[in-house]
Amino acid sequence: MQRALSVSRVTGNRGTFPDWYQAVVREADMAEVSPTRGAMIIKPWGYGVWERIQQTLDRRIRETGHDNCYFPLFIPLGFFAKEAEHVEGFAKEMAVVTHHRLKLIDGKLQPDPEAKLEEPLIVRPTSETIIGDAFSRWIRSHRDLPLLVNQWANVVRWEMRTRLFLRTSEFLWQEGHTAHADAEDARAETLKILEMYREFAETVLAMPVIAGEKPENERFPGADNTFSIEAMMQDGKALQAGTSHYLGTSFAQAQNIRFQDDAGQLSYCHTTSWGVSTRLIGGVIMTHGDDDGLRLPPAIAPRQIVIVPMLRDKPEDAQVLEYGQALVKALQERFALGEPIRALLDTKAQRSADKRWNWVRRGAPIIVELGPRDAAGGQVTFMRRDRLRDGDKVQSQAMTREAFLEAAPALLAEIQQALYDEAKARLDGNIRSDIVTFDELAEYFGAPVDEDEGGAFKGWVRAAWSRPTGAELDAVEERLKALKLTLRNAPMDQPQTCGTCLFTGKPGVEEILIGRAY
Amino acid sequence: MQRALSVSRVTGNRGTFPDWYQAVVREADMAEVSPTRGAMIIKPWGYGVWERIQQTLDRRIRETGHDNCYFPLFIPLGFFAKEAEHVEGFAKEMAVVTHHRLKLIDGKLQPDPEAKLEEPLIVRPTSETIIGDAFSRWIRSHRDLPLLVNQWANVVRWEMRTRLFLRTSEFLWQEGHTAHADAEDARAETLKILEMYREFAETVLAMPVIAGEKPENERFPGADNTFSIEAMMQDGKALQAGTSHYLGTSFAQAQNIRFQDDAGQLSYCHTTSWGVSTRLIGGVIMTHGDDDGLRLPPAIAPRQIVIVPMLRDKPEDAQVLEYGQALVKALQERFALGEPIRALLDTKAQRSADKRWNWVRRGAPIIVELGPRDAAGGQVTFMRRDRLRDGDKVQSQAMTREAFLEAAPALLAEIQQALYDEAKARLDGNIRSDIVTFDELAEYFGAPVDEDEGGAFKGWVRAAWSRPTGAELDAVEERLKALKLTLRNAPMDQPQTCGTCLFTGKPGVEEILIGRAY
Repeated sequence: MQRALSVSRVTGNRGTFPDWYQAVVREADMAEVSPTRGAMIIKPWGYGVWERIQQTLDRRIRETGHDNCYFPLFIPLGFFAKEAEHVEGFAKEMAVVTHHRLKLIDGKLQPDPEAKLEEPLIVRPTSETIIGDAFSRWIRSHRDLPLLVNQWANVVRWEMRTRLFLRTSEFLWQEGHTAHADAEDARAETLKILEMYREFAETVLAMPVIAGEKPENERFPGADNTFSIEAMMQDGKALQAGTSHYLGTSFAQAQNIRFQDDAGQLSYCHTTSWGVSTRLIGGVIMTHGDDDGLRLPPAIAPRQIVIVPMLRDKPEDAQVLEYGQALVKALQERFALGEPIRALLDTKAQRSADKRWNWVRRGAPIIVELGPRDAAGGQVTFMRRDRLRDGDKVQSQAMTREAFLEAAPALLAEIQQALYDEAKARLDGNIRSDIVTFDELAEYFGAPVDEDEGGAFKGWVRAAWSRPTGAELDAVEERLKALKLTLRNAPMDQPQTCGTCLFTGKPGVEEILIGRAY
Repeated sequence: MQRALSVSRVTGNRGTFPDWYQAVVREADMAEVSPTRGAMIIKPWGYGVWERIQQTLDRRIRETGHDNCYFPLFIPLGFFAKEAEHVEGFAKEMAVVTHHRLKLIDGKLQPDPEAKLEEPLIVRPTSETIIGDAFSRWIRSHRDLPLLVNQWANVVRWEMRTRLFLRTSEFLWQEGHTAHADAEDARAETLKILEMYREFAETVLAMPVIAGEKPENERFPGADNTFSIEAMMQDGKALQAGTSHYLGTSFAQAQNIRFQDDAGQLSYCHTTSWGVSTRLIGGVIMTHGDDDGLRLPPAIAPRQIVIVPMLRDKPEDAQVLEYGQALVKALQERFALGEPIRALLDTKAQRSADKRWNWVRRGAPIIVELGPRDAAGGQVTFMRRDRLRDGDKVQSQAMTREAFLEAAPALLAEIQQALYDEAKARLDGNIRSDIVTFDELAEYFGAPVDEDEGGAFKGWVRAAWSRPTGAELDAVEERLKALKLTLRNAPMDQPQTCGTCLFTGKPGVEEILIGRAY
């Protein structure tokens, strides 16, 4: 079940899961560490995946009635001070702009003391406060509600320990912000988005998730309820892949977002916010990657079918290239998964075998190798990346050109499904529900090891709990922390009755997922 | 020729051109001033126009072989210090991040002195330095060249006097960055992009421009050559709408971007950079707006055909809505300007007349008003926004449903062309080439007036000049500055011979455009 923890083809030796992850990111040419501490450079193949995520999710966001806007990067510090829990949650990781000019002082370029800002500006870690301020101006009456906006933007949270895509001080995301007339409507929005994220993760990213509500201690700072989708990575850890928050009226009160109802009465709006980020790309890598690098679900592969011409500096090369170009053109005219097929003829000046391995490492779903014999015989020889396993043994198939063109859409759909099925079997097969006491839990997960050391694959535990709050919850959190465990979420899908709380011994009120996490 | 300087329907009285501009931005619901000094909030209709610009330009950037990437928002201060002219050009308008945490001190939230950064970070005003640093790692041999990347991003330049879209402290843009083996290849790239921008501005934005080379004093800080496209606004001023820079080897030397040629010799790359920004939206407004608000070219209109149902709380309403929905669906299945038609049925709870004027102000190219009679008779009554003039008189036409569906693609193409033709006539008719001395120039433009006071429409002057440099050019600049004039560019299209320099009296070497500018 558990995949190998190194990219043997790439690194030449085995290593921990984090080593493997790093190797895939590097060898699939997705991203690299930047000279700006904690930030990343997203390279074309990685950014191409993000563009696919943007396009496919943006469509869903629009279809559910949300409009895209753009709000300022900098937020006046005073805006944060208004919502106490919110600032408490973010103050420790905020990048602060204090000057608006540089000056040469003592031969050294420095912030100009005469250009110090009266009020520092925060580089947005999230935009509830500045968007809420706009809402307070845009909303007058109940006819303005619900107000549904979204923005695609970069945000900054100063992280001490960073990892490409998974935790970077700057990342790209979408953040939805909505205002409603009552709690019912706002809660319905929160859950509608949660479902949108679930469907998106499973259908587009081929990444099965469990949607549920976060416990109180894991809520977004200032939220009444936080919901998440949680995915299981190949090391058994959980990745929180998207969150949707019901903010109650606390942000509306802090920002004075009010509306006049039919009777002329002024009331505070109920607001929500929700987001997914470039972190999803880390999730895709850790869900689908293998010892040969990345495997991309066709729905997000920037190129779904890559054609590598086998050239030998001989006259037949021209025929191979011509045949390849015609094949690309014919593929682009066909549709797979609802869109024109994204095909490419790789004409880079590079050895064919190196090219092939490049595309294997990058995870192109179908790799075609065209030689003079294929061109002469009207044939296509190809391999499915999802079925390539264990290094060099390429299992290729041959078809006539016509048969391949005919089969391509179904093949891509099959690959998308196969990747999902594989991940779904891993998720379903690795949630234990037979652990009912804390001692069993501790024994099952064993002593915590340093993240970079790896450790045995464990998956998650699903157990009944009494939903403790306050100090009682703090105690639970402490005990879990000692085992490097966290509460993930209480799945939406709950049994009729549940057992005794694993932590408190009280009657359980719901089941909750417990696991190690990113 | 010159359009009115107020939006009479909107403001109820006349005003200056800047007043008119502000009114259009506000009444077309494009953007608003934000509480963050100098930054703007781009509202859905304005952001929709930006998304259309992104999509249509991005396609062109890809088709010319460029890959999208993403580089960090923050640039270490030291990176700027390496290229002296570059830092000199931007140091005065840089937002500087100095701390990474806030702390409550004396009851007040402040930057935590213990979280002061060792080296301040600059919020990117442009990314040559950080992208150049990546290039120095990515480029090894001539086989890695040309390296062609682009990024869509936000940038910050601390502006003291801001105006929505035209000059804001934060703006959105694309910035292309490329590296080449020699000057010839890099210059060819610079000009290829200039031509791409010209074609894009004229075809997509319906905004005629003059492409040419900027004089030395107007170059991008650190560039060997800067080229621009310049558009003429309805007040006669020039708007620099896009720039393309040949950077020579100066950035390559500062960032150590070198490659090994076939002979094993290490050489510096020749680099280029180029960009257009949300400023283009200001250009579109000032090119096509009229006294009723905005007029959008169909190619960038988020909605090209808007259907306003005339509802009266009567049983026939259902029939009107059904007829409208079917019409939207049928329109969306047709193509105009190479894409599916973007049609909308406006079902908002609002008076029909208010809706209609909303869409007039927002500049939807075709506005359909559907009443019970249209629904019953299978008819479509519509108006072309480009032909609506002078307030209330709506000139509408009626067609059968089938005829309208048939005609819609051509109608949209016609509107696109009509808007271009109108602007093109204004540009062509307002460049004087009969002014040959500085005194004539001064007399023609007259005494400078404050920007906000407006002033008579003047257009540009095209005159021969001797291309002075250094102190001689500084003197020219000074004399022009006193008249609030600037040198725009030396058009690519030059005559065989040219007259005497308007400034120096020496023989002219090329013709250059002179005008007031944004």
